[in-house]
Amino acid sequence: METLHVELGERSYPIYIGSGLLAEPELITRHIRGRAAMVVSNETVAPLYLKPVLDALGGYKAGETILPDGEIYKNLDTLNVIYTRLLERHFDRRATLLALGGGVVGDMTGFAAATYQRGVDFIQIPTTLLAQVDSSVGGKTGVNHPLGKNMIGAFHQPRAVIIDTRTLDTLEDRQLSAGLAEVIKYGLIDDAEFFAWLEARLDELLAREPAALAHAIRRSCADKARVVAADEREQGRRALLNLGHTFGHAIETHTGYDTWLHGEAVAAGMVLAAELSARLGWLATDAVARIRTLLQRARLPVEPPPHMGTADFLQHMAVDKKVIDGRLRLVLLRGIGQAVVTDDFDPAVLRDTLEALTADATA
Amino acid sequence: METLHVELGERSYPIYIGSGLLAEPELITRHIRGRAAMVVSNETVAPLYLKPVLDALGGYKAGETILPDGEIYKNLDTLNVIYTRLLERHFDRRATLLALGGGVVGDMTGFAAATYQRGVDFIQIPTTLLAQVDSSVGGKTGVNHPLGKNMIGAFHQPRAVIIDTRTLDTLEDRQLSAGLAEVIKYGLIDDAEFFAWLEARLDELLAREPAALAHAIRRSCADKARVVAADEREQGRRALLNLGHTFGHAIETHTGYDTWLHGEAVAAGMVLAAELSARLGWLATDAVARIRTLLQRARLPVEPPPHMGTADFLQHMAVDKKVIDGRLRLVLLRGIGQAVVTDDFDPAVLRDTLEALTADATA
Repeated sequence: METLHVELGERSYPIYIGSGLLAEPELITRHIRGRAAMVVSNETVAPLYLKPVLDALGGYKAGETILPDGEIYKNLDTLNVIYTRLLERHFDRRATLLALGGGVVGDMTGFAAATYQRGVDFIQIPTTLLAQVDSSVGGKTGVNHPLGKNMIGAFHQPRAVIIDTRTLDTLEDRQLSAGLAEVIKYGLIDDAEFFAWLEARLDELLAREPAALAHAIRRSCADKARVVAADEREQGRRALLNLGHTFGHAIETHTGYDTWLHGEAVAAGMVLAAELSARLGWLATDAVARIRTLLQRARLPVEPPPHMGTADFLQHMAVDKKVIDGRLRLVLLRGIGQAVVTDDFDPAVLRDTLEALTADATA
Repeated sequence: METLHVELGERSYPIYIGSGLLAEPELITRHIRGRAAMVVSNETVAPLYLKPVLDALGGYKAGETILPDGEIYKNLDTLNVIYTRLLERHFDRRATLLALGGGVVGDMTGFAAATYQRGVDFIQIPTTLLAQVDSSVGGKTGVNHPLGKNMIGAFHQPRAVIIDTRTLDTLEDRQLSAGLAEVIKYGLIDDAEFFAWLEARLDELLAREPAALAHAIRRSCADKARVVAADEREQGRRALLNLGHTFGHAIETHTGYDTWLHGEAVAAGMVLAAELSARLGWLATDAVARIRTLLQRARLPVEPPPHMGTADFLQHMAVDKKVIDGRLRLVLLRGIGQAVVTDDFDPAVLRDTLEALTADATA
């Protein structure tokens, strides 16, 4: 087992990474301050991993809330299912919530914890690669609104993140690839060495070679923890973590959250960010080619949805959380491993890029 | 105009109290950091006071969201109306929300601000006595759940509280009385001198004598600001502000939020807290009589709803936010001006008190 730390003063917490950690109940219980814990999971994950977690809670008042599986359920109505369950079972403000599942379960459980009785503790137990390398770390929680992804939420840090890499054994291939999109993202943002490592070792990752996966998870978590520690509430540098996400969120919102996985949308979004960077003269075309190639090898989409045009993108991007006083900021690339947050680009070039690479190009 | 300060480090903010403050746009605009502001109000208040607030926002991107009036609408569905309006109008994370109305508008607008795009600024412009002396100060925000009052929420401090005492001119008598319940509460908690002042000056308050009202608001806000500054997130002393509220919330939840005003429920709740304190031998019976008398003079109920029995109270109180690891804590009285938070009481005496003073006594 390896332990990383997210350094946030009194809100600091450990990330445990290892194989078989779900069989170590003490890792969970040491982070529960009261005597009650509610596990929130979904219909896919619960049959596989709920039992060991409930077993770990033997000495506690324990319960579970099982949600339907999918980004389409990440909304206020499903959130209310968690509140209702907590109230029916009389969980009080010393209760701890445990998020057992992927990014959707983690985001919703975290937001429920941020807002139940004005805030209770929670622990992240991510079971998808995407949740392990990204969404379980950093305290961003929330739900979607029909008009925009993650528009309702709060910053609420977990008490611990417990990553059992063995849970990836049961992950379907498409979900593994979606997680790799966020892994590749860390290389692009500020870790060119990691990007090169990924180019060299991608086949091992796709073959689920345990040592390679463990390294990729560790490196991703370490990269993310460093950025979060420097800028918890995204006043500045943390926005780099959204590389590909403004385009990606537009894709997810446009397609209704039920067609594209988040990681898939981020992959296509990173290609758009790279292409725009190239058209601005900031990124070499061979770097764009390396990015496309690596994402394609990871079995990820590198094109937007076939029927989504420039106007669709611009409309959805206008409600992005990175819009400040009406001005769109994007995460763009000055090189592989050199992402920047900027609103200093010509909107006409953005439009040209979209027109060249979306449905408009073939219309 | 008088200015009080809630001292909370970087989250400190002023409370402005005065007659005619809505006519001073600069009081609002100096606390808006971006260029966009959304006023949230309700159908009762908007026709009276929305115009001067919108006029103050002349140089800004401005909008308004008008909600139905009443505690029954303080829920997730109405909250979503605010989110939708913000998204439709493309308000970004630099937007400021302005809560123009009573406690329901303030609590919901504050919670919307706490959670829209993971947190935006807000300003409280309370127009009821209850909101001016209590709910607009201190950063408690949230909505009700059918199973419990204020069970969904967050701590989120406003950037400023602007109290125009002239707005009380249009307040109906019943709402004025409901606000007086919270005013009287401050005397009971730790300000016996203020309680005596209220006994002497209640008739002036009921007659809406401006100087008396201004004094009562100032003193209440100062009492509350002191407690909040010492314990922002209710780890300890702040719970004193909930005197009468555990019983009161049970009444509100039981009656469905549409019969009793919050202040009325708190009044009946304070009598129950006083009676329980007396039965525990902590409070003299003549003090109980003084409390009853003052509340009755303020035209407030001093009995629970006619059909609500002991079992109803105990069931609703079991989900109170002050329950810690399954143990109920209550705010009780050791004297007028000497409230304590305690779980050190015999539950049998609580039961006896309820049986003597609720519907069970007349069954």
